[in-house]
Amino acid sequence: MLTQPQLDASLEEPLYRQLYLHFRDEILSGRLTRGEKIPPTRELAGQLGLNRATVASAYELLENEGLIRGHVGRGSFVDGPAASTSGPLRWADRLADPLLAEVPAPSPDGGPGSISFTSSRPADDLFPLDEFRATCAEVISGPEAAHLLQLGVPQGFEPLRAHLLAEARRDHLARPGDDIIITSGCQQALDLLQRLLTTAGDTVLVEDPIYPGLRNVFLRAGVRVVGVPIGAQGLDLDSLDRLIGRERPRLLVVTPNFQNPTGATIPLPAREALLQLTAAVGIPVIENDIYGELRYQGEPLPTLKALDSTGAVIQIRSFSKIAFPGLRVGWVLGANILIERLAELKLWTDLHSDQLSQAVLLRFAQSGRLDAHRRRMVEAGRERLRAVLAACDRHLPAGSDWTRPQGGMNLWVRLPEPLDASDLLVRALRQKVSFLPGRYFAVGRPDPGAFRLSFAGLPPDQIDQGLRILGTICEEDRVRGRDFRRDAPAPAIV
Amino acid sequence: MLTQPQLDASLEEPLYRQLYLHFRDEILSGRLTRGEKIPPTRELAGQLGLNRATVASAYELLENEGLIRGHVGRGSFVDGPAASTSGPLRWADRLADPLLAEVPAPSPDGGPGSISFTSSRPADDLFPLDEFRATCAEVISGPEAAHLLQLGVPQGFEPLRAHLLAEARRDHLARPGDDIIITSGCQQALDLLQRLLTTAGDTVLVEDPIYPGLRNVFLRAGVRVVGVPIGAQGLDLDSLDRLIGRERPRLLVVTPNFQNPTGATIPLPAREALLQLTAAVGIPVIENDIYGELRYQGEPLPTLKALDSTGAVIQIRSFSKIAFPGLRVGWVLGANILIERLAELKLWTDLHSDQLSQAVLLRFAQSGRLDAHRRRMVEAGRERLRAVLAACDRHLPAGSDWTRPQGGMNLWVRLPEPLDASDLLVRALRQKVSFLPGRYFAVGRPDPGAFRLSFAGLPPDQIDQGLRILGTICEEDRVRGRDFRRDAPAPAIV
Repeated sequence: MLTQPQLDASLEEPLYRQLYLHFRDEILSGRLTRGEKIPPTRELAGQLGLNRATVASAYELLENEGLIRGHVGRGSFVDGPAASTSGPLRWADRLADPLLAEVPAPSPDGGPGSISFTSSRPADDLFPLDEFRATCAEVISGPEAAHLLQLGVPQGFEPLRAHLLAEARRDHLARPGDDIIITSGCQQALDLLQRLLTTAGDTVLVEDPIYPGLRNVFLRAGVRVVGVPIGAQGLDLDSLDRLIGRERPRLLVVTPNFQNPTGATIPLPAREALLQLTAAVGIPVIENDIYGELRYQGEPLPTLKALDSTGAVIQIRSFSKIAFPGLRVGWVLGANILIERLAELKLWTDLHSDQLSQAVLLRFAQSGRLDAHRRRMVEAGRERLRAVLAACDRHLPAGSDWTRPQGGMNLWVRLPEPLDASDLLVRALRQKVSFLPGRYFAVGRPDPGAFRLSFAGLPPDQIDQGLRILGTICEEDRVRGRDFRRDAPAPAIV
Repeated sequence: MLTQPQLDASLEEPLYRQLYLHFRDEILSGRLTRGEKIPPTRELAGQLGLNRATVASAYELLENEGLIRGHVGRGSFVDGPAASTSGPLRWADRLADPLLAEVPAPSPDGGPGSISFTSSRPADDLFPLDEFRATCAEVISGPEAAHLLQLGVPQGFEPLRAHLLAEARRDHLARPGDDIIITSGCQQALDLLQRLLTTAGDTVLVEDPIYPGLRNVFLRAGVRVVGVPIGAQGLDLDSLDRLIGRERPRLLVVTPNFQNPTGATIPLPAREALLQLTAAVGIPVIENDIYGELRYQGEPLPTLKALDSTGAVIQIRSFSKIAFPGLRVGWVLGANILIERLAELKLWTDLHSDQLSQAVLLRFAQSGRLDAHRRRMVEAGRERLRAVLAACDRHLPAGSDWTRPQGGMNLWVRLPEPLDASDLLVRALRQKVSFLPGRYFAVGRPDPGAFRLSFAGLPPDQIDQGLRILGTICEEDRVRGRDFRRDAPAPAIV
């Protein structure tokens, strides 16, 4: 449908070009569609009070661009982009299928006054804001400020990398020839390692249940993820042994300290046995040690990286759980050939990680503030762990069981049948208490009675209050559950 | 070699299991290797003072696990993992093939006193350090400091995202329903878009020559990259038309403003024609506008995103060229369904981009300091562009030609035959002048005479001095080249 062109003889743009641009716009925007007839030059010139040559010049430009076409004896027609294809691009047809895995809502916290056990992250109120500010001020006033604003190298901000490597050597984590690359948190470390070490169709062994971000990194790439059951004592070694034989996995990913979501720690003999099993078949092990420094009870255990004698263990760590998760700084420690290849991959992925945060975290560590903060975090974590274990004892229904972590941020609860953690959540949210049901963490069949309690972000009184609410709901559910089961066989009332 | 088992009858573990565990450990650790003979039950029982049945039970367990095997009449032998696999892990066998593409050394700059035309990045001496420091100080002392230290959302730091979206709407870049996601620079934007929009075997059209980081994002993923020739007037549209028809590409990636490495800008009519060509076949266009704000001459042109009426254009931008490349903050503007899916992908890739830098850059923009800095950058760029064009005129050998950019950081030089840019570089490095030869940027056949001059990082006097050195070497080479060609047909002296 032709709309009336708005022409203005006082403009610098000549009238024929104004007319041409009007038609062009109409055609490209789809308001005039392919096949539509446009008025003969004589007719349009008459309508618009223009010289016929002006209209003809405009039509000529349009024809040169392929936007209109003249047919002898029939007049001119729109011949631009076909209506069907020049319409809006249908993005839905262009995008690969979304992940099959269910994604937890980023923040199911219920607003002010709510008690959230949903997120495995440090509490805002424990952030040492004054020390962070002092650290930043030192970094930006220092001589390296200009350097850190300039483009860097994929391996990471060199002073931080040197610091972390010196620490890893001091702690006998680094083997001769090992190296470090800085990543944007452990999540990126996992993503880069997935891309480097696996291809679609490979099989990877992980703990079941597992942090969804670890599982999904592999699933998204078409890698088969097979779960090794994990209990209070960490990975089940008999299952691991059997699955290594049966599945011929490409690698094993394991969190020996305070695993997310179970909080379980693998005891020393099992760590050694695990390394024997993987060394026997020569597969690499990714050791996710993101929670390793948050031990509240018992003696620290040597990491897999420290125990390994074959060079097969890749350790990933981060500042996110001990310091500031909003600053995305983690790292990978491993054989130098591996780190070199990760650096090449990182170059094409995002050039390098942000240098301001790397410099701030280095200064935070070197000034002794990180150690002081870690001591406070461990102290607070110990208190909160004690509180959550006591509250579970006090409030959860008989027949529940839960892990008894020695550190970290999470514990894993299993309610007695027929209680269902997803049902519990629906009712808990009405009372402003939230947590993540076990299904988010499942690799194989989810346990409907299981859920994760992330306790590190809450003060002890809120932990107790939250669990009291959960306990009360469970008690009600349990009573109704019994009633339901008793009533179930009765015929429906019609 | 069999070591003496340490058995202890007082332990709870029965002796046969102790013996079994001893052998298992010896085999898995590689101390007993495949093919080694183990003692007959009778003999070992006698040695250890055990009942023969105890030894037989231990052997049975080992045999069940495939660790030993009996041969009738010959005894039992270790049959576990081959000795070779329990040694050091051979990483080289485990890593996928490296990229075929050649990677420029991260910093071929020749140390103090050198003149580097190698890097398309802003000059350190133009960084407004005091303003950066003031901005940081404001951010860290502000009320949002605790918020930005906490875990964020994959879409980006919300105040920055809102700011960028408001700007995009003000500038008529954002269509109704468009949205923005913050990425760790443009490089990550490209990486995420590659993962979302293409799979191995797809074809993508890019300019030839092109920034290697853009080409390699796709090559690394097994995507076919086909080059569309680009000259001083930007993309060659006839080639684009032909390649769209022939290659059925999945998408087109294009840098309409001050392209890297050529510095070329696509004129307005060609932008419109380009969009017609892609709209006619309904393929998405990624518009890399990283240099768009660095225009030193002429009037700004509407971007493809502004001209697009179909929603098919995805625009990526960044603070890296205009402000601080060490802070990794870029963004993608596009249809909201696309941005949603990018956010999901980013969640599993690195959770979210660093929030300290996002907050600092937002404050830098909102305080007006970014605008002031941009004006200074444009002023300095104009001066440097003038200097590099004049120096090319003055020093490059007759028969050279080069692009005449209106902005950005790069121009593209082609030396007359038989001069070779790689040879020139070898000799230039001895005189502490560096640049990147054309082969790094090639998609198809490299032009041996071409190279990139990144002029934005150097003051005018160094630009002139560097080109004088290059010109002198060329002159020498050209003379020798003529000699060589004249001598070439002569028979070898035997």
